[in-house]
Amino acid sequence: MKSLKFKGCPLCSKQEYPIIFSNDFLRILLINNQNYPGYCRVDLIDHIKEMSDLNKKSQNKLMKTIFLIEKIIKVYINPDKINLASLGNITPHLHWHIIPRHFKDNHFPNSIWSTKKRNSTKEFSKEEELQFIEHVREKLS
Amino acid sequence: MKSLKFKGCPLCSKQEYPIIFSNDFLRILLINNQNYPGYCRVDLIDHIKEMSDLNKKSQNKLMKTIFLIEKIIKVYINPDKINLASLGNITPHLHWHIIPRHFKDNHFPNSIWSTKKRNSTKEFSKEEELQFIEHVREKLS
Repeated sequence: MKSLKFKGCPLCSKQEYPIIFSNDFLRILLINNQNYPGYCRVDLIDHIKEMSDLNKKSQNKLMKTIFLIEKIIKVYINPDKINLASLGNITPHLHWHIIPRHFKDNHFPNSIWSTKKRNSTKEFSKEEELQFIEHVREKLS
Repeated sequence: MKSLKFKGCPLCSKQEYPIIFSNDFLRILLINNQNYPGYCRVDLIDHIKEMSDLNKKSQNKLMKTIFLIEKIIKVYINPDKINLASLGNITPHLHWHIIPRHFKDNHFPNSIWSTKKRNSTKEFSKEEELQFIEHVREKLS
């Protein structure tokens, strides 16, 4: 696939988050600067705006990965719920949030983009982060 | 498919929103009490919590409908962005939000679950609502 880059798009630039997996179609990142251990993001490599801009084959390929990551998170983290979202209002470059949620997390039962309800602090240590990344890589291989 | 109903689940009960389409697997509703004309919701009929609880065939079948509705909304409404989300924190029964977003809507560029930024009022009239429902039904048939 020819890589489409868009000047000024933060997702077309180098990523700060740890990369769990990457190929020429997508990359899987661990969002490790938020209060949701195991929160992953899956970015399409190409700068494409909406799911319906992709052909069926690419839609299926992308969603297959999203649901696989959801399953890996479910088993490893054992959250009370998992949230899936592709918003892209600020960055209209296809990316999916896969967010493990807990009854006592900072926003439950609202979205993580809603007003904060609590001040719980629950984060991976550096070691837990590396263990999680390693675990996901093993499951994907 | 055997229909799984869960007592006390609002999605297993009768829906208030206009039903655009329904079969034994899913139903498509128009969310017409919010400030987002063309905002649709796709509910799984069975009371199932996560996408990864579905088999691959059902995952694909559901997402195919989500992306088709997204495309229909995109052409008919011409929004600035479309948001897709399956959260289910309050109601852990699989359902997808398909939300047309506009730069000047009440929450842009934040999620519709974030704090309101504006007081724009943009709603379908009853006639526009019926026209939209009719249009989606035609496209689905």
